[in-house]
Amino acid sequence: MAPVRAGVPTEAALSDGAWLSAMLDTEVALARAQAQIGMIPWSSADSIAAAAGSWRCDLVSLARRAREAANPVVGFVQEFTREVAHRYPEAADDVHRGSTSQDILDTATMLLAARALDLILDDLERVCAALAGLAERHRDTPMAARTLTQHAVPTTFGLKAAGWLHAIGEESLRLRQARGDLPAQLGGAAGTLAAYQEYAELRGVVAPGGGSPALELASAFAEELGLADPALPWHTARAPIAALGAELALLTGALGKFGTDVLNLARTEVAEAIEPVAEGRGASSAMPQKRNPVLATLLVSAALQVPSFVSVLMHCLVAEDERPAGAWHAEWQPLREALRIAGGAAHTAAELAEGLLARPAAMARNLRLTEGQLVAERLAVHLADALGKAGAKQHLGRTAAAATETGVPFSRAVRTDPGILEHLSPERIEQILDPADYLGAAGALVDRALEAHRLRCRRGGDRPAAGSDASFPAHRR
Amino acid sequence: MAPVRAGVPTEAALSDGAWLSAMLDTEVALARAQAQIGMIPWSSADSIAAAAGSWRCDLVSLARRAREAANPVVGFVQEFTREVAHRYPEAADDVHRGSTSQDILDTATMLLAARALDLILDDLERVCAALAGLAERHRDTPMAARTLTQHAVPTTFGLKAAGWLHAIGEESLRLRQARGDLPAQLGGAAGTLAAYQEYAELRGVVAPGGGSPALELASAFAEELGLADPALPWHTARAPIAALGAELALLTGALGKFGTDVLNLARTEVAEAIEPVAEGRGASSAMPQKRNPVLATLLVSAALQVPSFVSVLMHCLVAEDERPAGAWHAEWQPLREALRIAGGAAHTAAELAEGLLARPAAMARNLRLTEGQLVAERLAVHLADALGKAGAKQHLGRTAAAATETGVPFSRAVRTDPGILEHLSPERIEQILDPADYLGAAGALVDRALEAHRLRCRRGGDRPAAGSDASFPAHRR
Amino acid sequence: MAPVRAGVPTEAALSDGAWLSAMLDTEVALARAQAQIGMIPWSSADSIAAAAGSWRCDLVSLARRAREAANPVVGFVQEFTREVAHRYPEAADDVHRGSTSQDILDTATMLLAARALDLILDDLERVCAALAGLAERHRDTPMAARTLTQHAVPTTFGLKAAGWLHAIGEESLRLRQARGDLPAQLGGAAGTLAAYQEYAELRGVVAPGGGSPALELASAFAEELGLADPALPWHTARAPIAALGAELALLTGALGKFGTDVLNLARTEVAEAIEPVAEGRGASSAMPQKRNPVLATLLVSAALQVPSFVSVLMHCLVAEDERPAGAWHAEWQPLREALRIAGGAAHTAAELAEGLLARPAAMARNLRLTEGQLVAERLAVHLADALGKAGAKQHLGRTAAAATETGVPFSRAVRTDPGILEHLSPERIEQILDPADYLGAAGALVDRALEAHRLRCRRGGDRPAAGSDASFPAHRR
Amino acid sequence: MAPVRAGVPTEAALSDGAWLSAMLDTEVALARAQAQIGMIPWSSADSIAAAAGSWRCDLVSLARRAREAANPVVGFVQEFTREVAHRYPEAADDVHRGSTSQDILDTATMLLAARALDLILDDLERVCAALAGLAERHRDTPMAARTLTQHAVPTTFGLKAAGWLHAIGEESLRLRQARGDLPAQLGGAAGTLAAYQEYAELRGVVAPGGGSPALELASAFAEELGLADPALPWHTARAPIAALGAELALLTGALGKFGTDVLNLARTEVAEAIEPVAEGRGASSAMPQKRNPVLATLLVSAALQVPSFVSVLMHCLVAEDERPAGAWHAEWQPLREALRIAGGAAHTAAELAEGLLARPAAMARNLRLTEGQLVAERLAVHLADALGKAGAKQHLGRTAAAATETGVPFSRAVRTDPGILEHLSPERIEQILDPADYLGAAGALVDRALEAHRLRCRRGGDRPAAGSDASFPAHRR
Repeated sequence: MAPVRAGVPTEAALSDGAWLSAMLDTEVALARAQAQIGMIPWSSADSIAAAAGSWRCDLVSLARRAREAANPVVGFVQEFTREVAHRYPEAADDVHRGSTSQDILDTATMLLAARALDLILDDLERVCAALAGLAERHRDTPMAARTLTQHAVPTTFGLKAAGWLHAIGEESLRLRQARGDLPAQLGGAAGTLAAYQEYAELRGVVAPGGGSPALELASAFAEELGLADPALPWHTARAPIAALGAELALLTGALGKFGTDVLNLARTEVAEAIEPVAEGRGASSAMPQKRNPVLATLLVSAALQVPSFVSVLMHCLVAEDERPAGAWHAEWQPLREALRIAGGAAHTAAELAEGLLARPAAMARNLRLTEGQLVAERLAVHLADALGKAGAKQHLGRTAAAATETGVPFSRAVRTDPGILEHLSPERIEQILDPADYLGAAGALVDRALEAHRLRCRRGGDRPAAGSDASFPAHRR
Repeated sequence: MAPVRAGVPTEAALSDGAWLSAMLDTEVALARAQAQIGMIPWSSADSIAAAAGSWRCDLVSLARRAREAANPVVGFVQEFTREVAHRYPEAADDVHRGSTSQDILDTATMLLAARALDLILDDLERVCAALAGLAERHRDTPMAARTLTQHAVPTTFGLKAAGWLHAIGEESLRLRQARGDLPAQLGGAAGTLAAYQEYAELRGVVAPGGGSPALELASAFAEELGLADPALPWHTARAPIAALGAELALLTGALGKFGTDVLNLARTEVAEAIEPVAEGRGASSAMPQKRNPVLATLLVSAALQVPSFVSVLMHCLVAEDERPAGAWHAEWQPLREALRIAGGAAHTAAELAEGLLARPAAMARNLRLTEGQLVAERLAVHLADALGKAGAKQHLGRTAAAATETGVPFSRAVRTDPGILEHLSPERIEQILDPADYLGAAGALVDRALEAHRLRCRRGGDRPAAGSDASFPAHRR
Repeated sequence: MAPVRAGVPTEAALSDGAWLSAMLDTEVALARAQAQIGMIPWSSADSIAAAAGSWRCDLVSLARRAREAANPVVGFVQEFTREVAHRYPEAADDVHRGSTSQDILDTATMLLAARALDLILDDLERVCAALAGLAERHRDTPMAARTLTQHAVPTTFGLKAAGWLHAIGEESLRLRQARGDLPAQLGGAAGTLAAYQEYAELRGVVAPGGGSPALELASAFAEELGLADPALPWHTARAPIAALGAELALLTGALGKFGTDVLNLARTEVAEAIEPVAEGRGASSAMPQKRNPVLATLLVSAALQVPSFVSVLMHCLVAEDERPAGAWHAEWQPLREALRIAGGAAHTAAELAEGLLARPAAMARNLRLTEGQLVAERLAVHLADALGKAGAKQHLGRTAAAATETGVPFSRAVRTDPGILEHLSPERIEQILDPADYLGAAGALVDRALEAHRLRCRRGGDRPAAGSDASFPAHRR
Repeated sequence: MAPVRAGVPTEAALSDGAWLSAMLDTEVALARAQAQIGMIPWSSADSIAAAAGSWRCDLVSLARRAREAANPVVGFVQEFTREVAHRYPEAADDVHRGSTSQDILDTATMLLAARALDLILDDLERVCAALAGLAERHRDTPMAARTLTQHAVPTTFGLKAAGWLHAIGEESLRLRQARGDLPAQLGGAAGTLAAYQEYAELRGVVAPGGGSPALELASAFAEELGLADPALPWHTARAPIAALGAELALLTGALGKFGTDVLNLARTEVAEAIEPVAEGRGASSAMPQKRNPVLATLLVSAALQVPSFVSVLMHCLVAEDERPAGAWHAEWQPLREALRIAGGAAHTAAELAEGLLARPAAMARNLRLTEGQLVAERLAVHLADALGKAGAKQHLGRTAAAATETGVPFSRAVRTDPGILEHLSPERIEQILDPADYLGAAGALVDRALEAHRLRCRRGGDRPAAGSDASFPAHRR
């Protein structure tokens, strides 16, 4: 019941199965990190990885058992330990050593988010490439700018596309940064890492430089997973979750702006842009003629939802004690849903941007619709010295009002107005009345947006390595 | 990833399959209503019902196709029509006659909500019965009332339970009302019912009294489904959705209040209430001793989420034109999630209320904790005539502050304070210091709450008939 | 910085001064109720009323002192008691007898809400009367209905206005109900009314029938104020606040729907409706020709804000213990802001509805814009028997697509299509192509909405008496 | 009615007067920038600055006139131009040259935000310094960690304070960054800067390198104000607003976490921390003994509100066309309110952090409350090799359950348990049972947090120059 995201690439990356998979990756990474610092034998870590790689578990049963502990990890660890015990009995006790539910779930959530963000960033690259193309091709295609629904002054379709590009591109950059900042979580039962440390000391682990072996472990763990290594555990300092949510809302907002603009351009009376045509797309169950702008509709539907999911995450920042009773548990589904909707919106926007059809002829027709009122501001500029700024504005305002009332075109009234002809030659008036001649810095702004886009493309090359084959455990791709 | 709702009864009632089922019920009801007023033959309606009863369709494929039209109905109608055509060729053209996607989806959503609400109301009955029991049994069990986290004056556990009961019970009443108000939707392509009317006129249907046959159809359709028959189509007047959402937020809020109170009573230092014990419940993956108050935790997690889902529905009230591009599409998932979480919370609350263990001994111990400060207000009442209201309060405030600083119990200071002994006899002081003697109207308020509960129980008997065997199409139970 | 509400009638009714005024009314009503049951002498109540009537206090200083106690009542009671002590020394100790901050603030808030709602209801009456006029006058004015921004089928402007009317009128009815349900608050320090009861017993008050004198007091207090008398104190059962908030969001949503429709009708390319013209209204600081639809803009700005304020109130339902530390304190400003914005929106809507100018000529022009595609559905109905339902739809869909591509008008293609002429006579085709002939039940629906409006008007007569001269203390109007 | 912010420093910086002041600064900066590139004479710019410096205007009347244009700028420009015309007639036409309402209002809003953020950052420095002190002093003060309200394992008060410090400090860093990123707005009527460019060309301004003189102007304008110079106008790309809002919600969330922890530590039964005592603070209007934790309460009240205000800003990202009808107008008040509440919360947190009293004795008492269950996890670590990980946990879980049921202390049961004594010596058991000996990496984590704090302090030195005397117009300090 969320068409914006049905079947898009992020759906699989955010399924219940993917979450389980990320939890397994987390346990494997924990075991490997523990082996690395000498807490458990490498053979255990390898066995745990092997068991994780082939385990098939009953997701529905796990989900139901999550009610018992208010989180899915307790049951998951029991089942997975059983599986390891079955296949590699000697390794079973090294599963989840010294750990706590929140370490596993938070870290798995960050993995899940990282994987979803990688897909989203791919789609955003497509969006930006396509919008850059539109901005370039239509750099100088004039159209009416509209403010508060009314024709304002001329602009270009290129600048419109450049605006979408710049907003989405900049947010894409922020998102890439956010993806790189996603932290692993390792704090133990209450954020002191005590049980990790106790086990490590029991095993005689000594940290280089006499530091805490548990903090050593935390670093190794984060590195295993390609996640950031935070200064402190963040069990109850939930900025990583809430800030990620905020970026997703900023993204769907930028995509929703693109969507709402397309919708307004596609209105029957405006008809300046058409959504990509595809078999069956945009059909109505009632009306034969309908080709609804469904992609843009889905973008708007996404932008209407994500801010509220994020609002939950913001509320959950108030996480009492060393683990809150409720605030942590309220995060999971809204964060996932925000990622899902954002993923669907990014994919939808790629389809829309790549196939969007601009209709310069309609733009030209609409430019003429007010018969010159669109450049009333420009006339005011040119009459300001003669009539005073306020006087010029007032004079032209009256002329426009009269045009609307009497039906006499504004441009004709201007051309024949002695008060204007006194100050501007007919040739000058004609030039001023040409909307394509009053585009201000539109072209230069398009160039700026394209330059910024090219810069982002170059910087985007260094995508964080996490997610690549090298950094994730080999057993689970 | 939402333990509050995993596996509870409403989950099945709100699944993708259930939604499809409700869409089928809606198409069947439409056909039957059309047969009833003579638009299509009864044989068609029966064939459509028969086909609906046995159809197995591919939900995943339908969900993906929903992207094409931005809603699932277009694809659904095509597939279902194909199924009918396959089995009852002559009836195929009578599927979805004159109809539009929104009529089907909105009505199906209301059916889904009705079915979920019935289950929720059942669970709320359990909650209220259990809380009424607690209120009755502990009508006179004194405990400390706490305001802004500090001991305030005495209250009773019975009044606490009565407060939960009354809030949840009254909301249950509102919800029952809301369930009865859920309207069917029939408006046709743009709210004029034009195609229904055109078909009806083509078939020679004449409405009794010369009214509109389409409005006749709308009434018959609503009656078929046991839903309310609205005065106007509500394609873009979304109060039915948003108001339902508001009730769900009020419900999870009332349940969250119950949950947060249990959490505070269960704090290790307070220990006045214990969650029902069950095998495996409340376990930690790290700490052997843990019996976490998980049910209360889940209630709080629900109350943190639903307000935000409802906020989406409130935003979607701004539904432009005759069908909005985005606002309609943003409603489905948040409404479903609100119903799901509310359903999970109601079920969880039933478990919690039925098993909640009050610990009067701990309550008594905590009552003594401040050594009399809990009844400082009462002392102030009795000293007001002698010392003036402000004077009495100030005097006792200083005594309390001194007690906190010096460790001398407040009660001892009071008993030996000449300024107090001048006005109150030692016997009177002892009586005043007894917390169990300063319960005000607590008992009477418990009685009121129980009386209101009994009244609701009696009124609740007349649950709306919709949902009963008689009113739903026989094929789909 | 909130133009939607600047200077509207509710602004004064919701000012800091109005809140203080309501707090004074509350203290006066408490004293009068206490006098009535015999807790304090009538002379005290009269003195308190007299002092309240003439007191001038420093609002800014009170607001700052509110930080000390986290609420404004503690400081307010001290200052007001000082004032009473100054003028009527013997009455000073009878100010705020047995009371608590929350009793005063919650009750004052309800008074404030009641007064604001009365003003809002007045404005909504204006809105509904004006919209009823529009619906009636334009009952049969045809225009294009639009779904997902595209022309769909014909409708009437009357039905559009009727839709606004019905949504706003029904919400107005709910709001009137909500206003009557606003409860007084009387619970004492922790909801047991203990200090009230203790004082009453000290004074020898005996409740009739042996009930609790404190509950007697609560009833008298509510009656004094014209507020509802709740079964239990609602210090931590905040449904009255949250439910009121929900109604306000439903209201601004309904008004926002009206606003967004006007905006779309006012688009330069559509131009089917014009906002009321007034000197200076809709001007731009830049463009001489601009007459922006500012009233509709303000309505939309209101609908974007209120759902979020209400979301705060929903969150505050989770109010722990006998008085929450934070959840109560977070309610005040969002509730006031929701009332303010709703008040501004209602007033703005009245201006908009009363002056809205429909432009039937533009509607007629736009009806012709798609050259017949608007009635493609109707053609499909008439061809369904001949070509099959799906076949007819497909055939017309292809015709429409071809029309869009080739520029050959759809209506011409239809008129000359042998496949159609085989089944429909040219005369029948002409009739079918007339949009004004395909309005379905639009007229009947308008009649229904007007009938419902008239019914509400008749029922609205019995506005709750509270707010009338009789029920409020005479000293403060 | 918002005690969290009454009278704090940000209140004045965010008043209506401050906003007007910022609008004047903006017009002055525009004039100066125009003088700089040669669009208007310097004498005009100086006159405009002089007039701005001494103007007294009627804020209430301006606010009401804002309803006419749906924004306050149109009326403001008229009034201010009148003032300039009155004093410096020749400069009047150079006021607001080529400009548009949104350029002025958006830029003024950014100025306002910058000034509020400077004050907030000051308060956050106080918060962090005080928390660093607490973390340092209590680096090794043991206390019970609590998860889901239950005692979990030991931690230290130092780590708790370090957690608050790190979260607030890191957010402070982000906020400092956000403050530096606040952009000026200059786009003209519809984002093309056309009128600015037209005026510039009329005056013969040539940009160096042949670029757009309007973009030259935009840079000069931003520099005048000490704001960032954005690549494109952001009239409808509202990330600067929404992202700022998100940071404010992250801040109040971090402060709310601090607050909720203090509340739980201050509970009568816990009593491990006490709010700073001050005359009158924390008083109740009813109960003499009350010293409520009001500062923490206010922090929580802030965290409950800001996420919702931010949700409005997120919704307003969907800003259609070149200026939206409603989405822009809905931003102003929620953004201001978010800044206000955040400002109040930062100031409140400074008071709380600087005066917070930790009570190690109570912490020690509570550590003993469960008689050893607090270190059950540690025992499990030490028994894991002997009993297996699961076996050890199960065994200790049963022991803990029995202790709760029978009242026999857990530690005594452990000390006498043959199954344990078989594997651990009595001396080892005693050591293990000492909570102060099971602190894991707590100390090292405190050191990390303090190190990060010191690093931030050093980096914080380079606060953006904007806001200093040098960068703001001299007339308005």
